[in-house]
Amino acid sequence: MVNKDATIGINTLSGGVVAPEGFVTGGVVCGVRNSGRRDLGLLFSERDCTAAAVFTRNVVKGAPLEVSREAVGDGSLRAIVANSGNANAATGRKGLEDAYAMQDLAAKALGIEAADVAVASTGVIGEHLPMEKISAGIEAAAAELGRGGDPFAEAILTTDTRTKEVAMQVEVGGKVVTVGGTAKGSGMIHPNMGTMLAFLTTDAAVEKECLQETLRQATDRTFNRVTVDSDTSPSDMVIILANGAAGGEMLTLDSPDYPAFAGAVEAVARVLAKEIARDGEGATRLVEVVVEGARDEESAAALAKSVVGSNLVKAAVFGEDANWGRVLNAMGYSGVSFDPGDVELWFGPVKVFGSGEPVEHEEAEANAALAAGEVRITARLGEGGASATAWGCDLTYEYVRINGSYRT
Amino acid sequence: MVNKDATIGINTLSGGVVAPEGFVTGGVVCGVRNSGRRDLGLLFSERDCTAAAVFTRNVVKGAPLEVSREAVGDGSLRAIVANSGNANAATGRKGLEDAYAMQDLAAKALGIEAADVAVASTGVIGEHLPMEKISAGIEAAAAELGRGGDPFAEAILTTDTRTKEVAMQVEVGGKVVTVGGTAKGSGMIHPNMGTMLAFLTTDAAVEKECLQETLRQATDRTFNRVTVDSDTSPSDMVIILANGAAGGEMLTLDSPDYPAFAGAVEAVARVLAKEIARDGEGATRLVEVVVEGARDEESAAALAKSVVGSNLVKAAVFGEDANWGRVLNAMGYSGVSFDPGDVELWFGPVKVFGSGEPVEHEEAEANAALAAGEVRITARLGEGGASATAWGCDLTYEYVRINGSYRT
Repeated sequence: MVNKDATIGINTLSGGVVAPEGFVTGGVVCGVRNSGRRDLGLLFSERDCTAAAVFTRNVVKGAPLEVSREAVGDGSLRAIVANSGNANAATGRKGLEDAYAMQDLAAKALGIEAADVAVASTGVIGEHLPMEKISAGIEAAAAELGRGGDPFAEAILTTDTRTKEVAMQVEVGGKVVTVGGTAKGSGMIHPNMGTMLAFLTTDAAVEKECLQETLRQATDRTFNRVTVDSDTSPSDMVIILANGAAGGEMLTLDSPDYPAFAGAVEAVARVLAKEIARDGEGATRLVEVVVEGARDEESAAALAKSVVGSNLVKAAVFGEDANWGRVLNAMGYSGVSFDPGDVELWFGPVKVFGSGEPVEHEEAEANAALAAGEVRITARLGEGGASATAWGCDLTYEYVRINGSYRT
Repeated sequence: MVNKDATIGINTLSGGVVAPEGFVTGGVVCGVRNSGRRDLGLLFSERDCTAAAVFTRNVVKGAPLEVSREAVGDGSLRAIVANSGNANAATGRKGLEDAYAMQDLAAKALGIEAADVAVASTGVIGEHLPMEKISAGIEAAAAELGRGGDPFAEAILTTDTRTKEVAMQVEVGGKVVTVGGTAKGSGMIHPNMGTMLAFLTTDAAVEKECLQETLRQATDRTFNRVTVDSDTSPSDMVIILANGAAGGEMLTLDSPDYPAFAGAVEAVARVLAKEIARDGEGATRLVEVVVEGARDEESAAALAKSVVGSNLVKAAVFGEDANWGRVLNAMGYSGVSFDPGDVELWFGPVKVFGSGEPVEHEEAEANAALAAGEVRITARLGEGGASATAWGCDLTYEYVRINGSYRT
């Protein structure tokens, strides 16, 4: 993908959501978590923004998602307030009131309208937010807004072992625009499930329908192709803010340079998605599954996700066992029809299966392809010209320990 | 279910596929496995049978499935030849020739038509069968056919820790008929996936369309509601033989006592399905998820299977952590729409969630409900009157060890 990106002139920078012009963040320890780590953050744009969002498809949704969906409904936002340590999900009517209160408190502290603030919470499910701590935290975070470091990236983490940030630049309509992002991955918080949150910013000016379509497509190809344990959380959300601070014409889907901008957004999202997989609970390896020669992109993605989500494949990667039968098997139950006699499989550079039969190979070489920090499994079908990639991680003792014994 | 079965007069016996009249088995060590355990078995009916079968939905299918599907196509069979240690899957044209050769060898040894023999193989994928050993094994097994013990039940095992057998009797048209069964569960064999095989016999006389419908419905409600790791194998199959040795009229779907017969078949299948879940790789507990109040049985089954298949739920059971949020979450991504505000959840007898909010309870009591060998999780919806049950097991360090390190 480096080459592909290079052809449209995307450069990677250090920094995350504050790399684009006109965005500031703050993050403080307010005490929702008992870890002493930052747990409340604000992301603020000094200018009006267009905004777009994608939310979890889980039937069970956290209260903040209702508030954020309403806020982003008109295609504009100025700020995001987020906390870790408590997901404010399965909390009934009081939970919804608390989410609205968070929105109000952040709006007052930032001097903007409540309808311009999105709310995100991640952590414990089924417990009410400690609103005094949240309130004090919002005040404190608003008082220290700035562009130094990124306290916001830390404040959204749960059991993630590190922050996840990236920024990229691309030329659009004669102006250099920047796209930045930060995310948190799948981590388990007492007593419940993790959450994927990702926030993207850009100083490009982007018309709102265009921004929504850009985010939808980027999310489909990146965040929606990551699995740590196939469990979709009620709190998952991805939001992008575009404030136009870089100057230039308002981008639309018809702009000549729209593909470059969309490419930069997708590249930022892809880096974050891969970091989420790499930092999956208990993971020792990033697993990348590439499916080529499929009938269409949707089929290719379904096949790739089925393989990367298989416990048997994940355990085999952990064991450095180039068990191609498990890969073929997971493709077989993906719901996509294909001719197994036309499938070719590779572990790294080693071809292990073709034309419906095993291919003679050095087992040690194939196993060695699984020993690196990044593992690539490729399946080539004979059905068409579409391809897709999905990302995940290995299944380890540590995953079982984190999720099976953290209460004891 | 004990009560329900009792109302239609089903009695449980010891014994398995040889409990019904007119069936004999043989099983020998032929050396496909290197374990010294029996690995080749024959099941034979002394009389003509009607037969029905259900096969894996995996796009990738083992060679024996093609042969068996063809054999059962006319609704009659006399015998099953099965081996463990090698699945004869992903073996190309030679694999198919080998499966036909197994069928021929068994037919000759038993003095019947090849078209009356089904073939089943389970174990290694991607390796050709050692046909000399198979051939000698079939001869030896045919020479020792009988009704003592059940060498056939042992010969089909892979990493299962014990044989799985059951038989039940019920009165049909004034005659006592017997239904017996044996199965093997999900076990991993170098270098590939496990297989679910189940074989049922009955001395009832059953018209072939009726037998197929009976097996389809019983399988949907039992074997298709078991998950160990959500990986469906290319070799899964369930076959039933009905030889009429008990006497009596030919049963059809319209027979007054058909429900009693169908109930006995389902009860036999349910016992075997639960034994498969209980003996799942690395399992320490059988997990039973009951969904009630659903719109229809299909929705109830999808919800129950989503919960019992969730790694997070499975790990929580292993950790004796009554983590109801993970249960609600898994229901939420099942693909079934429902109102979370109407859901009630129980761990054993302890209610933990209702009306969209947590229910106050003693955490220790809820956790204790997970400490037994059989764990029951109940979800009650407010959508309708349908219910379904699914079975699985916990996710343990041992599962990761078996599947991540058996090559090293």
